[in-house]
Amino acid sequence: MVKHTNMMLNDLYDYDLKIYQNPEYFKFSIDSLLLAEFVHVKKGDKNIIDLCTGNAPIPMILSRKYGEKIKIVGVELQREIYDLGIKSLEYNQIKNVCLHNLDILNILSLYNAHSFDIVTCNPPYFKNYPHTNINDNPIKALARHEIAINLEDVIKVSSSLLKNGGYLYLVHEPVRLAEIIILLNKYGFGLKQVQMVYDDLHTPCCLILIEAIYNGADYVKINRPLYLKQHTTYQNIFNDR
Amino acid sequence: MVKHTNMMLNDLYDYDLKIYQNPEYFKFSIDSLLLAEFVHVKKGDKNIIDLCTGNAPIPMILSRKYGEKIKIVGVELQREIYDLGIKSLEYNQIKNVCLHNLDILNILSLYNAHSFDIVTCNPPYFKNYPHTNINDNPIKALARHEIAINLEDVIKVSSSLLKNGGYLYLVHEPVRLAEIIILLNKYGFGLKQVQMVYDDLHTPCCLILIEAIYNGADYVKINRPLYLKQHTTYQNIFNDR
Repeated sequence: MVKHTNMMLNDLYDYDLKIYQNPEYFKFSIDSLLLAEFVHVKKGDKNIIDLCTGNAPIPMILSRKYGEKIKIVGVELQREIYDLGIKSLEYNQIKNVCLHNLDILNILSLYNAHSFDIVTCNPPYFKNYPHTNINDNPIKALARHEIAINLEDVIKVSSSLLKNGGYLYLVHEPVRLAEIIILLNKYGFGLKQVQMVYDDLHTPCCLILIEAIYNGADYVKINRPLYLKQHTTYQNIFNDR
Repeated sequence: MVKHTNMMLNDLYDYDLKIYQNPEYFKFSIDSLLLAEFVHVKKGDKNIIDLCTGNAPIPMILSRKYGEKIKIVGVELQREIYDLGIKSLEYNQIKNVCLHNLDILNILSLYNAHSFDIVTCNPPYFKNYPHTNINDNPIKALARHEIAINLEDVIKVSSSLLKNGGYLYLVHEPVRLAEIIILLNKYGFGLKQVQMVYDDLHTPCCLILIEAIYNGADYVKINRPLYLKQHTTYQNIFNDR
């Protein structure tokens, strides 16, 4: 077992929040921060669930952006990472986020089907082929590779959690774009918005953000690109897209 | 019937070619030019077929770029537009392009199945709903709306024309991205490359270019964006992407 030897308390970027991390096995990424910014909370939305929440950066940012009016749930399989999230919520005195140490495949043991307005997820990115070179650290491996769950699990579980017309927000690697769209279609989602993210003007897309509606039609808007190196803050960066 | 009253001989952009057009019913678009540039002809490729070829700008540009070593076929349903293409080929003395005045659904009456290395298509973009406001001009209407053929027809016919490992190049509107990817999957294509095109830095994507492989796996590269207003020529614009 990995021990809690190197736990650190870091700034959660520029959100005026602190986050407990452990470089031995988990640090939050810019990907989670961008996904939290990409979420569009509509008037009347009451609850959000973040699958594969890690040390809970997405729930914390959503809580900071939208305040106490929204109830936010985070679900993390790995106890060591979940513990970091719990400590961060306590430190920041965040009251409207509830974390569960649970496999997302069992989430309907805690919540009713079709009871959420929004699902967010920054899932493991990498396929788990028989000969994939997987990180020796089992905690890192589970967070990065599709060992415990895969993309189809995430989209299937999301479809069971969302109300009709509810929204799923996903971040992923561009290489999986076709697979994501095919699975969204398979589980009743319509694709609504795609945000491509680039490091700079000269390199291919490094990240995609996806907005899909449960039980709605495809009608895709592809936003103007986001270039990471052109910005010093990402707060409210998608407001005018 | 629309008559050939306003036929004009225009420059085919900056390709040192002339193209016959008729503003009453058909002029080539920047979309066709970008698609022709997006095509990647590999060593050993022998033939290309352009579906919905219009007045044949794509075959003419491909002939100019790749010379006589490639045999190029163009297929156009509408006699009036096909006639313009034939006149342009004669004017430019292009020998390696063969045009057919034919419904693409009947193309296997002329060619063997799975006999082409590359298929290109700039199809009608707009769905033909029962109450769609369709252009009064029947020639324009057929070129722009999915009346004679739809997206699924184009992708299905392409799958029947391509060799194993052959490539399909499509240009379309971003709003149809999900549908394109789902249909590509249905007919055995793997998505390989997506090129988003934008007017400028400030507006959403206006056009998508798609590269898909017949009987190959999805593995998607999303290129750095193309901004139309930053360029005065599009020749070889995708060479370094």
